[in-house]
Amino acid sequence: MQDLPDMVAIKDADFSDVDAVFCCLPHGTTQEVIKGLPKGPKIVDLSADFRLRNVDEYEKWYGQPHRAAELQKEAIYGLTEVSREEIKNAWLVANPGCYPTSIQLPLVPLIKERLISLENIIIDAKSGVSGAGRGAKEANLYTEVSEGIHAYGITNHRHVPEIEQGLSDASQCKVTVSFTPHLMPMSRGMQSTIYVEMAQGVTIDDLYKQLASTYEGEEFVKVLEKGAVPHTRNVRGSNYCFMNVFPDRIPGRAIIISVIDNLVKGASGQALQNLNLMMGFPENAGLQYQPLFP
Amino acid sequence: MQDLPDMVAIKDADFSDVDAVFCCLPHGTTQEVIKGLPKGPKIVDLSADFRLRNVDEYEKWYGQPHRAAELQKEAIYGLTEVSREEIKNAWLVANPGCYPTSIQLPLVPLIKERLISLENIIIDAKSGVSGAGRGAKEANLYTEVSEGIHAYGITNHRHVPEIEQGLSDASQCKVTVSFTPHLMPMSRGMQSTIYVEMAQGVTIDDLYKQLASTYEGEEFVKVLEKGAVPHTRNVRGSNYCFMNVFPDRIPGRAIIISVIDNLVKGASGQALQNLNLMMGFPENAGLQYQPLFP
Amino acid sequence: MQDLPDMVAIKDADFSDVDAVFCCLPHGTTQEVIKGLPKGPKIVDLSADFRLRNVDEYEKWYGQPHRAAELQKEAIYGLTEVSREEIKNAWLVANPGCYPTSIQLPLVPLIKERLISLENIIIDAKSGVSGAGRGAKEANLYTEVSEGIHAYGITNHRHVPEIEQGLSDASQCKVTVSFTPHLMPMSRGMQSTIYVEMAQGVTIDDLYKQLASTYEGEEFVKVLEKGAVPHTRNVRGSNYCFMNVFPDRIPGRAIIISVIDNLVKGASGQALQNLNLMMGFPENAGLQYQPLFP
Amino acid sequence: MQDLPDMVAIKDADFSDVDAVFCCLPHGTTQEVIKGLPKGPKIVDLSADFRLRNVDEYEKWYGQPHRAAELQKEAIYGLTEVSREEIKNAWLVANPGCYPTSIQLPLVPLIKERLISLENIIIDAKSGVSGAGRGAKEANLYTEVSEGIHAYGITNHRHVPEIEQGLSDASQCKVTVSFTPHLMPMSRGMQSTIYVEMAQGVTIDDLYKQLASTYEGEEFVKVLEKGAVPHTRNVRGSNYCFMNVFPDRIPGRAIIISVIDNLVKGASGQALQNLNLMMGFPENAGLQYQPLFP
Repeated sequence: MQDLPDMVAIKDADFSDVDAVFCCLPHGTTQEVIKGLPKGPKIVDLSADFRLRNVDEYEKWYGQPHRAAELQKEAIYGLTEVSREEIKNAWLVANPGCYPTSIQLPLVPLIKERLISLENIIIDAKSGVSGAGRGAKEANLYTEVSEGIHAYGITNHRHVPEIEQGLSDASQCKVTVSFTPHLMPMSRGMQSTIYVEMAQGVTIDDLYKQLASTYEGEEFVKVLEKGAVPHTRNVRGSNYCFMNVFPDRIPGRAIIISVIDNLVKGASGQALQNLNLMMGFPENAGLQYQPLFP
Repeated sequence: MQDLPDMVAIKDADFSDVDAVFCCLPHGTTQEVIKGLPKGPKIVDLSADFRLRNVDEYEKWYGQPHRAAELQKEAIYGLTEVSREEIKNAWLVANPGCYPTSIQLPLVPLIKERLISLENIIIDAKSGVSGAGRGAKEANLYTEVSEGIHAYGITNHRHVPEIEQGLSDASQCKVTVSFTPHLMPMSRGMQSTIYVEMAQGVTIDDLYKQLASTYEGEEFVKVLEKGAVPHTRNVRGSNYCFMNVFPDRIPGRAIIISVIDNLVKGASGQALQNLNLMMGFPENAGLQYQPLFP
Repeated sequence: MQDLPDMVAIKDADFSDVDAVFCCLPHGTTQEVIKGLPKGPKIVDLSADFRLRNVDEYEKWYGQPHRAAELQKEAIYGLTEVSREEIKNAWLVANPGCYPTSIQLPLVPLIKERLISLENIIIDAKSGVSGAGRGAKEANLYTEVSEGIHAYGITNHRHVPEIEQGLSDASQCKVTVSFTPHLMPMSRGMQSTIYVEMAQGVTIDDLYKQLASTYEGEEFVKVLEKGAVPHTRNVRGSNYCFMNVFPDRIPGRAIIISVIDNLVKGASGQALQNLNLMMGFPENAGLQYQPLFP
Repeated sequence: MQDLPDMVAIKDADFSDVDAVFCCLPHGTTQEVIKGLPKGPKIVDLSADFRLRNVDEYEKWYGQPHRAAELQKEAIYGLTEVSREEIKNAWLVANPGCYPTSIQLPLVPLIKERLISLENIIIDAKSGVSGAGRGAKEANLYTEVSEGIHAYGITNHRHVPEIEQGLSDASQCKVTVSFTPHLMPMSRGMQSTIYVEMAQGVTIDDLYKQLASTYEGEEFVKVLEKGAVPHTRNVRGSNYCFMNVFPDRIPGRAIIISVIDNLVKGASGQALQNLNLMMGFPENAGLQYQPLFP
């Protein structure tokens, strides 16, 4: 906690006139801060602190016991389009991670409708380097990142339990996924390429129709027209998630691609979308920035 | 053929003093050119024209009948470390594509030893944009490529039959793979992230040992130490292929990662390595450039 | 003109209900198109066709006679903050080029007040590659542009007469500048680093005060606080021009730096700003996008 | 000095069998280390410690007194092509900085022959970010550097006294230059665009001929053919310096452009070239890497 000289300032602050708070503190410190706040303000927490309902799972992945286990029960996981009604009534929303957002938006509806197998869900994800934050680490220097790619966090990225929690909720079964993130030489943008097995008798068309109908009318989640490949550049700087589904060469399998801007729909944009819902504002308030290309 | 004003010049050229030829003509034209040459010079063909032994398969993927089917029988597929002895004695070598090189180098030995299942081999590949050549296409402009990624050629990239031919050869069975290439915002570099199912009773350690022993002593193919993640930047500008194998979260599955410089081991470097073998030169002649980083 | 299959369509179109037109045709064709339109709609022309008042100068730099010399006399050069009042009353505005915008915004006020010498104005300018448009040219491929820089159009870039016209107008003398543009490995962004000699007795502080007072209250042109270096990333995607002035090591000289997004303040943003003025709309309508960083 | 835990190790090391040393310690520490070494090994120091003959100048720019002033007198400034004979006989060579290399190679011969004025030499320099080293600083993160440019160290970059020392030596007068470095979104590469006034009666052709004859026969310094613009990509990864000279629009002025790879000719490449000379090895030993493009 020594990194947070302002903790005292936060504790002594007067929140009586505050309606809403974005909590952007580092993972592991938000718990204590929020626990110490008076009830009243609506809070969207951008850290991972309240994302995992199971506090043992939290301890396992984050290496320390949860310090606000009782609040965990009240926190709502803020994947907006999936849990809109709960979010409206929440006072504490755990804003999803970037990878989990890009993965659950396409997979949750397909799993809920039992259109894909829960076995062998293979997720090859690619992220711009801003996902690593602005800390001065050698690994994130221009000279290290430019003109090269590599995988990282193979099998042990902290977004794994969050993804599996969401898919397990959707299926009512325990789901284990293969998840391999890769670092891309770009600042923003995230793509998840997801390889799945369709359930018996299900076709690509069924997957497409399900996604299209789930997100029909949504402002920020778009299923592209058939055959159109989502490009990260087409969501850059915006709160959009674009997705599509493709047949695989291996019979019975499908490839799902989703793209987001990891800093917007994957972070602050979805946070604002959630806060808008919690406060009764128009859901798209402040979120109508269009993608910036080139 | 109207794109080749020099075809006549080639036909009229005097090859009597020529020992060796790199053939760098566009796909579809090499056939005719090589057919027209006098026997004598050793030829490494960098196009796709002689890569597919099955000329029907060629016609299906390239949209035109093969025009030198009889030569196809004499061509050797030049994946150097896999077919070194045949290459030494060949007069015509079909130099492999970049994706097939990065994929077959790790998979062929594992398949030959039956260490992995032939089902559900899922290949998520990433390439720098130089793979698309130097043609002036809008899709390859800096403004289109920089700071963004996307998949392309989903299910129908022309390297698919070449990959499947190699894996089918290794297994003596017909193998169908899932192959999804992605365009990266970088000039050089290629990574294949390959998701496989291990054969019954096989462990990660078995895969690792097999790769390590297959490539022990090879100058250009390196299995990294356990746990080390291959980065494309570490092979940039060199003829190296770096690879490693990782356990997956899903029990029984493994993740294989290989990286090459698509322009060197994936093209001209391997071509020179092959020609060195054909001519009896030291295999590494002209290939000792070390990776350029940063 | 053969590149414009829609010329006929434009000529036959019904403009009776049209209030305003952005004309985004290639240089050299706008003249004819606008000449053919009925009077009525307000027009902002983004091409270079009406930027040079002297039609001989136009012919010299563009290699063809001007085909609408009589309209040239009615066109207003749309450097918004410099010519706001004329623009309000114009029906035809020639939208400035990107380099000329970034150069004239700082230099015009200094020249008008005779704070700098008209001799030896040296402009070293740097632009992202989007300035070259979206045409498929080899020079603009990712592989050509990434990770390298170079000068181009040395002494003969077509923005030279436009810059010199603006500075000559400001000084009432004929000004000849040194102008060397450079291509940068980035999509958007433009910086002009301008090396000038201060007039006798003038100090850096005088330059700073002049710029600060000229642009005081301007929404889109900002003189940074003393010592702060303008970065292109801080105007990316926005209509801002940031500038500042620095003492040189050589006594009596100053360095002026200005940055814009070449596609916004250097093109469509300034065009919209001009049209807003011409139509009596709020000047910032549609222009309140904040810079996108990272 | 607390950053150098190995200082003791260096002092205790046995140098009796050592013929040559590359000294790559941080600026300010090399002085003490080299002072402590036994005489014997030839040393090329890549830091700035022995570049400035005037130790007061050193103290002024580096903020601390020089701790090996007596050695300073024996150090030779290692701009290879300019001081080849002195370097051959030196035991201690101060390897030049990257900017000074790119600037002095074209300017020294022109100044020696009095072909350009010593007044108003304006240098606008552009460097890739590797020039800043591999330290983990926020300013050098990918997200800060990518897709943007900015000037830095305006008037106070530490390479200024080194440049002015070299030009003053060449002219036998005190030269003061304008020097503005800019950070580019690229890893390697450096360009200096130098704006000069030609001496009375001198023409561009005179400048060109002087440079061409000075560097005729040099392996690593090339004057391009007339009109050809040097691109940094064409020297990437190599020890080359490419240069050319262009007429300016302002009569009597010229524009000189030189490009190097800041990590090779601007650092380790020139260091090796110097050591080769000092040891009597072929000057190009280990330096024949050709530029890597793309």
